[in-house]
Amino acid sequence: MAEEKPGLLYLVPTFANPTGRTLSAARRAEIAEIAAENSLWVVEDDPYGELRYRGSAVAPLASISDRTVYLGSFSKIGAPGMRLGWLRAPADLLRTLVVVKQAADLHTSTVDQAAAASYLAHTDLDAHIARLCVEYGARRDAMVAALPSAVPDGTTWSDPDGGMFVWLRLPGDVDSAVLLQKALKHDVAFVPGAPFFATTPDHATFRMSFTSNTPEEIREGMARLAEVLR
Amino acid sequence: MAEEKPGLLYLVPTFANPTGRTLSAARRAEIAEIAAENSLWVVEDDPYGELRYRGSAVAPLASISDRTVYLGSFSKIGAPGMRLGWLRAPADLLRTLVVVKQAADLHTSTVDQAAAASYLAHTDLDAHIARLCVEYGARRDAMVAALPSAVPDGTTWSDPDGGMFVWLRLPGDVDSAVLLQKALKHDVAFVPGAPFFATTPDHATFRMSFTSNTPEEIREGMARLAEVLR
Repeated sequence: MAEEKPGLLYLVPTFANPTGRTLSAARRAEIAEIAAENSLWVVEDDPYGELRYRGSAVAPLASISDRTVYLGSFSKIGAPGMRLGWLRAPADLLRTLVVVKQAADLHTSTVDQAAAASYLAHTDLDAHIARLCVEYGARRDAMVAALPSAVPDGTTWSDPDGGMFVWLRLPGDVDSAVLLQKALKHDVAFVPGAPFFATTPDHATFRMSFTSNTPEEIREGMARLAEVLR
Repeated sequence: MAEEKPGLLYLVPTFANPTGRTLSAARRAEIAEIAAENSLWVVEDDPYGELRYRGSAVAPLASISDRTVYLGSFSKIGAPGMRLGWLRAPADLLRTLVVVKQAADLHTSTVDQAAAASYLAHTDLDAHIARLCVEYGARRDAMVAALPSAVPDGTTWSDPDGGMFVWLRLPGDVDSAVLLQKALKHDVAFVPGAPFFATTPDHATFRMSFTSNTPEEIREGMARLAEVLR
């Protein structure tokens, strides 16, 4: 803070992309304190927070810091084809944010907004999210359970409580982008980790998503990945 | 060109916003030649081109220059609430443009795309545009006909062959932004011209749109504007 004097901190504090990790309540409190002391704005991007499969929710940064702009998304709990999100910000910031959005895209599709309004009026969204969490939780469990026998000794991975991703690191001097080319020949894919690094990339890392496939498909995919890794 | 060595030229060559003016075929040919000689890219933004009420279409720059990226929009011929446009570009540029768009917004709403696909499959778009042109042409005529008796001597205005706008300049040292505040009290509005200038603004200019109101409403609006101007 003292050296760089940043004006803004961007965070995905809950089930982060790509690591799946969540900032503890204690670290959130520290961030809120640092933001207040340094007039720092925090952007809390939270597309995954409602997708929790175990453990208890950690209160959003926005609930403990009035220097937070909180971003929500319909993409992960509704449908990504509808380009809809929302934000919560201090009232005196909202007018400026509206002007910025108008300059960026004029406005969000009124067709998408009307479709979402109709969906929300006629659907129990909480029940829908609960169903998502049951299904995604089973998919997460299938992937994590298949990992120990699929990856070489010395591989490490995150064990996420929610979200969509497991983040892995292979032992030794491996480039996951090269590995991906071999995996694609077996019709199994992941996202190489290097592009996620802001500074020096670790090429041995990669991200796997567990939400798009059934547990059975995940087990098959992990078996194919194991073959590629061998 | 020699001094600034620009890489890109952005143009609305047909029924430009805010002036309503159209570049002649001769000037388009000159631009195509300059683009070829200087490796200049031209972005031809053409949301209004299909809204022609008199005269003959001028061939798009894209038809005479292979250094042109042509932009079309569904907003002015269909519905602005659907955030849909398209572009035509040389094939070897398209892949890069797709990546740039993905970085900007991931993708266009699939709901909007599906709605437009259904609309286009079940509607005669050319007939719809022809109906728009009949109606908008009558609105244009109503506004232009009301102008001479509504504005003070020495006022100049564009006499557009299409599009949505008439562009005016009042005589003397007038600020149209101040005038707007008075006009709003009579429930009539226009857009002050100053923000449209890239360099030194001319505060005596303003833009009027003729597409949103019926000829009768336009005549009433012009009568109110005349009162404000007096």
